[in-house]
This record gives sequence, C-alpha cells and structure tokens, in this order.
Amino acid sequence: MKQLLFAATAALALLSAAHAQDPEPALSPGQVVDAAKAEEWTAIAPADLLVMDLAPDTAGKARHVVIQLMPEPFSQGWIGNIRKLAAAHWWDGTSVYRVQDNYVAQWGDAEGEDPAKAKPLPEGLATVPESDYALSRDDKRIKSKDYASAIAKFWRWHTPNPLRDAYAGGQGHWAGWPLANDSKSIWPVHCYAMVGVARDMSPNTGSGSELYTVIGHAPRHLDRNIALVGRVISGIENLSSLPRGPAPLGVYDDAAQRVPIVSVRLASELPEAERPRFEYLSSDSESFARYAEARVNRRDPFFIRPAGGADICNIPVPIRAVKK
Amino acid sequence: MKQLLFAATAALALLSAAHAQDPEPALSPGQVVDAAKAEEWTAIAPADLLVMDLAPDTAGKARHVVIQLMPEPFSQGWIGNIRKLAAAHWWDGTSVYRVQDNYVAQWGDAEGEDPAKAKPLPEGLATVPESDYALSRDDKRIKSKDYASAIAKFWRWHTPNPLRDAYAGGQGHWAGWPLANDSKSIWPVHCYAMVGVARDMSPNTGSGSELYTVIGHAPRHLDRNIALVGRVISGIENLSSLPRGPAPLGVYDDAAQRVPIVSVRLASELPEAERPRFEYLSSDSESFARYAEARVNRRDPFFIRPAGGADICNIPVPIRAVKK
Repeated sequence: MKQLLFAATAALALLSAAHAQDPEPALSPGQVVDAAKAEEWTAIAPADLLVMDLAPDTAGKARHVVIQLMPEPFSQGWIGNIRKLAAAHWWDGTSVYRVQDNYVAQWGDAEGEDPAKAKPLPEGLATVPESDYALSRDDKRIKSKDYASAIAKFWRWHTPNPLRDAYAGGQGHWAGWPLANDSKSIWPVHCYAMVGVARDMSPNTGSGSELYTVIGHAPRHLDRNIALVGRVISGIENLSSLPRGPAPLGVYDDAAQRVPIVSVRLASELPEAERPRFEYLSSDSESFARYAEARVNRRDPFFIRPAGGADICNIPVPIRAVKK
Repeated sequence: MKQLLFAATAALALLSAAHAQDPEPALSPGQVVDAAKAEEWTAIAPADLLVMDLAPDTAGKARHVVIQLMPEPFSQGWIGNIRKLAAAHWWDGTSVYRVQDNYVAQWGDAEGEDPAKAKPLPEGLATVPESDYALSRDDKRIKSKDYASAIAKFWRWHTPNPLRDAYAGGQGHWAGWPLANDSKSIWPVHCYAMVGVARDMSPNTGSGSELYTVIGHAPRHLDRNIALVGRVISGIENLSSLPRGPAPLGVYDDAAQRVPIVSVRLASELPEAERPRFEYLSSDSESFARYAEARVNRRDPFFIRPAGGADICNIPVPIRAVKK
C-alpha cells in the first residue's frame, strides 16, 4: 500500500512537473523576435554600414542597398580596402554587371578585366593572403573559448545535433554572424545575402572592388575559397530580382543591361540625418537562442512536423531598422 | 638485406599504385556532365511536363516556364489533381500573385481565399491525406532496397559522410530526384526550384491549384509539412526575378502587380512539334556519381580547398533540353 501511494504521489509529482513545464503558447520565430527585450538588440555602428544607391528602376523607384561589414577579426584586409574604395567614392559610376540565377549578383567595374578600360584603383590597397579566408582558432582576437561558449549557449537548446552539416565540423553564431569551424580554424559562411570578394584564379584573392552577394541556395563550397566581408541587411530584393544575365556566369553581355551604381558611401560619411540605423538581435541573447530553437522546431500552427534541426543558413540573424 | 629489398619493392609497388591512381585531370562538375554518355541520359515523358506561359514582360519578351512532375509513387494524389487542372485549362487567366524574397513564388487563383470571388475548381479533385507527404519505406512501389542501393551507389564515392544534414538521417538521389529519409519513411526535399502545393492550416493539404516554387535558400523545414509535386526545369528566372510583393508573405497587394498566366498545358496535349523535350542525367549512372563527387570536392582550377561534403540541394540533377 505504501508503495502504491508512493507511486501515486510520484505520478502526481510528474503530472505537476509536466504542468509546470507546460509549453508556453507555441511562438513562431518572428513572434520570439518581436518579444525580445530592447537590451537584447545591438546597434550597428554607422562606420560598419555601406549604403549603395542604384539608379532608380524603370518606374522611377529608388533602389537602396545597405551592407553591414563583418567585425574584427574577420577579413579585415579586404574590409580595409573596401573602406578606402568607399572613401574614394570609387564605386560611383560603376554597375551591377552580373546576375546569375540561384547564385550571385556582382558589382564593381564591368570593364575591370580589360587593362585598357579598367577604372584605376585608389593607391595603397592591401594584397591579402589566402590564409585570411579562415581564422586560426588560436587567434587571440577571437578566443576559441568565446566562440565555443557562443555555440554552446545556442546548443543547450538542442539535441542531439541540430546543426549537423556536410561542410564543417561545427557551426554557430558569434557576434551576430554565421560561422563554421573545424579543429583548427573558424570561418564565415556563404549564406543568402552574404557579401564576398570576387577574385581571379588563385593566388589572387581580390582587392574588394568587385563584390557579389548570394541570391540563391547557399553556395557553401565557396567557403574558405573566397573572402566574405559582410552581408546585405536591407534592399537585397533590389539585387535578387534583377534580370538574369544571358552570358555565361550570368554576365550582362550588353552594357545597356548593366544597372548603374550612383554612389556607395560609408554611413559614417553621410550627414547624421541621412544615416540608416540598424540593430541585430545579439546572438548570445536568450531571445536569439529561443528564436533559433523555434527555427529548428517550428511549432507555429502551420507546421505539423518540426524538423528537429536546421541548416545554419536557415537561422538568419534578425536585423531591423531603428525608428528615428 | 632481404628485408630492405622487400621494403624497397613495397615502396615501389606503392609508388606504382599511386601512379596508377593518378588523378585524371580535375574536371569541373559541368565538364563531367558534358562528358556523360548518351545512354546515361533519361528522356522525360511529355505527359510529365507542364508548360506554363506567362504574359510577355514589359519589353515584350515571352516568358515560358517548364515544370517536371514527380514520378510515381510520390505525391500522386496531388499530381492527379494537377493533371486534371491542366486538362481543364484551369490556370489560364490566373496569375503569379506572390513573390517572397529568399522563399517562394506562388501562382494560381489570387482570389481563391474569397469564396465569393474564387474560380470554381474542376469536379473530381482528390482530397489527399497528410500521410502522403512522405512515403513508407515499406511501400512496395519504392522498395527501400532500391532507394538504399541508389544512395549506396552514390556514397561509395564519398567518405565519411558527405551529405551529413540537419534535416534527415539520410539523403540521396533516386530516379533523378533529391530525397531524404529516416528509419520509417522517404520524402522529397525542398531544394531550389522544387514545386509544392500551397495549403491552408492542417489538416488541409491543398488541392494543387495553388502552386509555389522555391526561389531562395532551401526551406527544408517545409519538408513533410507540404506536398512537393515537381520542379521547374526551364525558365525559373521568369519567376525568381519577378519583383517581390510588398504585402506580408510577398503577396502583390495591388492586382495590377500580378503576373498573368496565359496558359498551362501538359506537354502531351501540345502538338508534337511544340512539345518541349528534356532529359536528365540518370542518378544511378556512373557520370552522375562522378558529377556529385565533383560537386562535393571541387577541384576545378578556381577552387583552393574542396569542401569534402555537400548539401543535397547543392547537387542539383543535371537536366538539358534535347535538340530537335
């Protein structure tokens, strides 16, 4: 009898525990983000934003694109070049000259490969080595410990391995960016809207004057083969919905097809009133972990079967404009 | 001395073996496909092709889209409905009414959710159960053995697990289609350009009148939550480069933004001279395995570091038009 009572008590305790753990109403990833606290958002410095204005479309609609540059210590050689190119207003008058379906949109000097026609680059651009495509885990500027702890914080929501991936041993978000790693190094990942540096054949690594953004399924085979320097955080549709180029690799073979770039500026160079202001959901925040978990296991009413895992590129870091 | 001689002989034998295994010149995935034998290609039956003609673009350019329907035994309830809808010319006069960046383009009856305005559906459409989103591994129409053997054939090129994936225990290509599996079932995968059946809340599974195609990073969380019925094999750019809709979910809020669908026909209904003809590289062919391996380990001159793995959606099945 005593044993039975115990069993009954245990059952009640279990029930009670189950009740205490009653799931909160299942929130969609977007609802989790909407409920994040103000202090979980991190402002993006104007010095880390590039504002690219394309010529208006045929209906006269303005086309702005805002790019966030990656933080230290990643890809800083190329990013230094990009800051110089922007300060020199080098991109003004260049164009988007390549749009390849399910791959990339690319911009810069459409005539750059012809020495007779190429637009001269500003002096003092760095030549960056291929070894900078990934960062050593020993690099003091990003302690492996910090990265591991960022990933662990995210992963405690998940079992057994929700980010299992064919391209890397580990993946996670650090300082608001999608990263992958093996036992020796850490590198940024070619997700949708990430911005990279077009280059010629190895050992050329590109200067940063010719940039592309991903407009299709993540071309992860480019990871560690090309430098990633940032991501489009606003206006990606002004690039992703452009007509695809008819020539090989999506190049516009007729100069008239190119989309003129009116100007590219660092936001910090713009008058304060004109600076775009954005913030991202800190990837080490509680809300980010909940958001990621909600992406891994969709329980909002539309879904009937949560996946139990997610591709890191299917957990984009939430970014929003700050109301002025 | 005898031992030393043996060692030297062994070393020579190893060298010789290494020489015998000398890599052939590194081919790009495209070059592997170009070198495939004629008999490695499989023709797609006209009865499995849907031809969708959109209204010409603003420059008067024709916009054709060709969709290949999935083979038996997948999603046949919905595909039966789609054949009926095409035979009834039901889509003629409907539109592309939703284009959401990095997600989907969707078409059918833009007013379908308003009973007062909805276009009546043909009679006799099936109501398909949710259980048909995936197929039992015991299903006699696709023996698990066949699927396992198809995957094994692909995998013998790879170690240790080049398709490791967060969404499923296993993945591979079968009969030219990307599939995923767990211990109980097998299902098609939401890769770029795959076509699915829009639906209302569960248990509704959609009739097949409202279709979408993936125009961004593979939304794998939709796998097993929505029916997949085919893929766009030609003209995807006529959908992926459309302006994104301004309303929530990328819906065109102004009817004038919708892109008119002039007609949708099964190719088998067209006069023989007008039928598009396509073929795919058989996924159980030697060339497909080599192509997949070349996607997993890019060794063409541009690449400096092969990935050693690939997302199944980064191994699209090669499909080409047949010259008439």
